[in-house]
Amino acid sequence: MTTDANAAATPGRRPRGRPGHDREAVLRTAIDLFIRRGFDATSISDLAAELGVTKSAVYHHFPSKEALLSAALDEALEGLSAAVEAASEATDGERSSVRLRTTVEAAVHILAGNLPAVTLLLRVRGNSAVERAAMERRRHIDDRLAALVRQAAAEGDLRGDVDPDVISRLIFGMVNSLVDWYRPGGPLPADALAATISSVLFEGLRPQPDAAAHVAAYGDDPR
Amino acid sequence: MTTDANAAATPGRRPRGRPGHDREAVLRTAIDLFIRRGFDATSISDLAAELGVTKSAVYHHFPSKEALLSAALDEALEGLSAAVEAASEATDGERSSVRLRTTVEAAVHILAGNLPAVTLLLRVRGNSAVERAAMERRRHIDDRLAALVRQAAAEGDLRGDVDPDVISRLIFGMVNSLVDWYRPGGPLPADALAATISSVLFEGLRPQPDAAAHVAAYGDDPR
Repeated sequence: MTTDANAAATPGRRPRGRPGHDREAVLRTAIDLFIRRGFDATSISDLAAELGVTKSAVYHHFPSKEALLSAALDEALEGLSAAVEAASEATDGERSSVRLRTTVEAAVHILAGNLPAVTLLLRVRGNSAVERAAMERRRHIDDRLAALVRQAAAEGDLRGDVDPDVISRLIFGMVNSLVDWYRPGGPLPADALAATISSVLFEGLRPQPDAAAHVAAYGDDPR
Repeated sequence: MTTDANAAATPGRRPRGRPGHDREAVLRTAIDLFIRRGFDATSISDLAAELGVTKSAVYHHFPSKEALLSAALDEALEGLSAAVEAASEATDGERSSVRLRTTVEAAVHILAGNLPAVTLLLRVRGNSAVERAAMERRRHIDDRLAALVRQAAAEGDLRGDVDPDVISRLIFGMVNSLVDWYRPGGPLPADALAATISSVLFEGLRPQPDAAAHVAAYGDDPR
């Protein structure tokens, strides 16, 4: 979105192409193509054509298609890591349920603000070393959230009739699905979005005396 | 999973290959490969190799890769349509919130029972006529659910501080995310899964006097 100071500061090593073409624009367009057509189906030639530049101009900024994917996934992962870290520091010493809720809202902000990169992150399936490394880093972030869920459940602040790991999955499910429908600049600002998701989730997840009986009754259904 | 009576009843038109190879096994393996490697990256040769048969044996059952994708998407769509229809008939005359909840639970059952086909359905991006037709049918099913949400909200049975279309997205998000984590045969039977998701969602979505004030306070956050 912003112009890239590094690109301007680095003299073009490849005189052909358009070395001054904004690194950021190359990355944004690559992410867009990877999402629309898939990573495998997108070539550096496609990317250059979409940008209206030569392949050299693309290679000036990124040595390979994998480097573009890696940069996109790094962006999403670094945003999520930083948000989880900041939420953790901001709520140091508070109850786990407060820390969890703050972390979920921070994650929603990152998703809403980095939709294309996060969309790519959520779609990787481990088909390459770059993808597997990203999945490993994502798992590490997810594990921190899952640990908070287990602590909040152990402290009695989450309903006891649902396994804490299932609770984590339900939270991830609702939060991650944002990438399929949320569009920034629409009627729902990111702050309202974060507050809405957090409210719906944590009202649904609070300890509820009736819930155990209800779930048990359904669970006994012999179908 | 079951053997295919049609395959046995249809004499092999292609003497080479193994025409008797189970149509159902071909479809299951194709769905598995499409999910693991992606549709574009999977060839009929890959599929035949995975099955240990000739390409002719595959073509005996399906004329093309697109026909395999179409059969997989049909399976998911027909399951979902039938479930939504059955839930609608079973709750005819009841409040919209009851009809909605029954429909959501029926959808969870279909997802849990048809995970691979539904996974493919949720991944299609409209890259071909087959995919676009499936997306159109899926939209039709989603629209029925969204209409129930709007009716239940209008009847005062869902919280009034969240736009009904956002509520629909949150429901779809949590339900559809099953394909990323739920595994049949594990500790959580499909009935308990449906009851859990339904309970967490609809407890979180009930009219809540405090919720409006809470969301408004967060929405005013100037970030």
